[in-house]
Amino acid sequence: MKLQLPRGMRDFAPAEKLLRDGVLATLKATFERYGFNPLETPIVERWETLAAKYGGGEEILKETYKLTDQGGRQLGLRYDLTTPLARFVGMNPSVKKPFKRYHVGLVYRDGPLKKGRYREFYQCDVDTVGSASMLADAECVLLALDVFEQLGFDVEVRVNNRRLLFALAKRFLGTKDDESALGFVLSLDKLEKVGRDGVTKELREKGFAQDLDELWSLVELDEAPRDALARLREALDESGGWLQDLEALFALLGPQRRVRFVPSLARGLGYYTGTVFEVFMADGSFHGALAAGGRYDNLIGDFLGAKEPVPAVGISFGLEPIVELLKARTPLADQPKTTVRAYLVPVVPDQTTAGCFEMLSKLRAAGVHADMDLMGRGPSANFKYANAYGVPFVIVLGPDELAAGQVTLKDMGSGEEARLGFDEAVARLTAL
Amino acid sequence: MKLQLPRGMRDFAPAEKLLRDGVLATLKATFERYGFNPLETPIVERWETLAAKYGGGEEILKETYKLTDQGGRQLGLRYDLTTPLARFVGMNPSVKKPFKRYHVGLVYRDGPLKKGRYREFYQCDVDTVGSASMLADAECVLLALDVFEQLGFDVEVRVNNRRLLFALAKRFLGTKDDESALGFVLSLDKLEKVGRDGVTKELREKGFAQDLDELWSLVELDEAPRDALARLREALDESGGWLQDLEALFALLGPQRRVRFVPSLARGLGYYTGTVFEVFMADGSFHGALAAGGRYDNLIGDFLGAKEPVPAVGISFGLEPIVELLKARTPLADQPKTTVRAYLVPVVPDQTTAGCFEMLSKLRAAGVHADMDLMGRGPSANFKYANAYGVPFVIVLGPDELAAGQVTLKDMGSGEEARLGFDEAVARLTAL
Repeated sequence: MKLQLPRGMRDFAPAEKLLRDGVLATLKATFERYGFNPLETPIVERWETLAAKYGGGEEILKETYKLTDQGGRQLGLRYDLTTPLARFVGMNPSVKKPFKRYHVGLVYRDGPLKKGRYREFYQCDVDTVGSASMLADAECVLLALDVFEQLGFDVEVRVNNRRLLFALAKRFLGTKDDESALGFVLSLDKLEKVGRDGVTKELREKGFAQDLDELWSLVELDEAPRDALARLREALDESGGWLQDLEALFALLGPQRRVRFVPSLARGLGYYTGTVFEVFMADGSFHGALAAGGRYDNLIGDFLGAKEPVPAVGISFGLEPIVELLKARTPLADQPKTTVRAYLVPVVPDQTTAGCFEMLSKLRAAGVHADMDLMGRGPSANFKYANAYGVPFVIVLGPDELAAGQVTLKDMGSGEEARLGFDEAVARLTAL
Repeated sequence: MKLQLPRGMRDFAPAEKLLRDGVLATLKATFERYGFNPLETPIVERWETLAAKYGGGEEILKETYKLTDQGGRQLGLRYDLTTPLARFVGMNPSVKKPFKRYHVGLVYRDGPLKKGRYREFYQCDVDTVGSASMLADAECVLLALDVFEQLGFDVEVRVNNRRLLFALAKRFLGTKDDESALGFVLSLDKLEKVGRDGVTKELREKGFAQDLDELWSLVELDEAPRDALARLREALDESGGWLQDLEALFALLGPQRRVRFVPSLARGLGYYTGTVFEVFMADGSFHGALAAGGRYDNLIGDFLGAKEPVPAVGISFGLEPIVELLKARTPLADQPKTTVRAYLVPVVPDQTTAGCFEMLSKLRAAGVHADMDLMGRGPSANFKYANAYGVPFVIVLGPDELAAGQVTLKDMGSGEEARLGFDEAVARLTAL
């Protein structure tokens, strides 16, 4: 048998897993501080749920892993956490609104592989369901700023509003409704990739023959929100609600050095209806977005076939780019490989093993992450093992020490050694 | 479209998810304190890996969800965390031994459903790979005692050794090797379910015609380890290593009120080779085991086709029974539904919303889990919402308060109210 992983999937050995768990802990703690509560749904969903028109769409369905249970039921592995959220909201009508939930979970895409793209990966989603207020949008932006400040990343949050883009399309391209304006939005989403000329070419292909100069001058505005909004108001009809949204949002955010109004920001997904945002490294040192999201007031209601729309806004954090950046900052080889703080070495195994095991229990009872030789190896092999794992303290218990009721505590960083009583050593390590 | 979950799978709404996450946090923190480091492997494995002879066996394979990727590769959803461990160890020969890892992850079984049995559930596994020392076995037992003490469960750890059972089968049933003795072990595993008569009947059916009285008198010994081991030594050949194992284990464990030597304990899985243990509620208030495990010195080596055996011992904690017991103790309706400590109510939305949002940011920056009205509702609807979620403090900000630079802080438990300045209220909540 050949030992190998499924294509596009990964093992996470302890060093990388500890790093990833640390990031997830920061995310979850921040999500909870912002009033979001955890939700968990199965990784496996009914195929009918995943294939629902208002879920991920055709393209994603092609990349969805399909399976069948013994009863012949059609199932699939979820491709995102939004479809399960919509299903959960539909199945639990008594859940009080606004329903603020976060969901950290694995999703699957059986698609082409490239650097940083996997077939099994985490999504870390935060969504507020039931509120149409810009307070909820502002919360997402502040939450993102908080998360990345804690991670020590200097980021910029780019903000725009789909309703502004729809208004621009109506004014300058003559589109009649939001649906036809979406063609403009999806072309504009490629601006960073193909440039102004590329987008213009695609718009021409879509049949927009108008003069685009004024449109470009507005889309590429890069000014303080107040000034940019004034320019846009002069050029556009305000009835689409974009001005109200954006003014309310920027008023709530207040002066934020790290928030930028980017009228060309489009986002690739069809379902956004209002605010959209993306988080990038401020210095451009990472190409992709670290987090992104927006308002999608129609998706859940459409999914459920509800008469009334169910307003919602959310942001999704990318664990993979965050971990990639952290590894670029500190290579995995220099990251902790264990949480163990003290490793015990019974110098003469038969004589001092029991003493070591007793000391080990004392340390653990005191809350110290501790471990001991389980192989009956000699001291030098044990020091090598402790070094390989980067354990900061080694405790040596030889017959001399045992007779004196003491241990030798060695600081592996400084090389310093001290002879201490059992309890004294425990106290020293507990205090560190 | 009908909204429903796949059969045998569940959603966990916030109250239950918070409870489950709390248990998992206790487990993980304890695992790390005992020197185990986290490993993560994909939920999807190659079918060939899952179907390997030394994995879960035919019965489990029948219950394994099968899938195929777009490239036509045969895959499956893992049914346990032991097969992935063996694969990981095989693919990473440079990992230092002993390799002490824990793994908390979802596993899948497309099998019959009954109470407490699901098709998607967590396993919480702790294993030491590479050490044949009873220190590793003793560690598992002490870890289990520690976990359940923290959870407030009064448990009993039942301990036995497969090598003792093999020796009993050889002495009283005339089996020649461990493999043929396994038939006895697997029948004995049903003792609790079918009683002594049921097991005897099954042994007769398997062709064992011997007088079983002495066998039963030894198997059902219920004495202190020292006394029971003395009786067994008189009756049996010690060369199988069972006496050495058990004496070493009980010596390391020391006098433990909650550890019981149960010579009839068998465990249903074929792969155990030495120590076996199961954890039960001491008062019998829960029928099944809360955790179980043992030593399996051949499985990994056989799986890898290695020349040398790879000794291993581990214990698996059942999240489902633990959560079931916790819910029996405190019904879900009385468990926390949110981690939010303070909920802010802008009495006159338009006038005091901005002030509330500012206060909200202050609270969150101070580390207080806080939330505010996002619906523009009146005070009574907001108090109802805060009550439904069980938020302990509500902060009211009306025009009067705003004019005075104050808020009203209401303790929802006692009903007490206090007028405080913004910063004073933040300080009060931070201190609580």
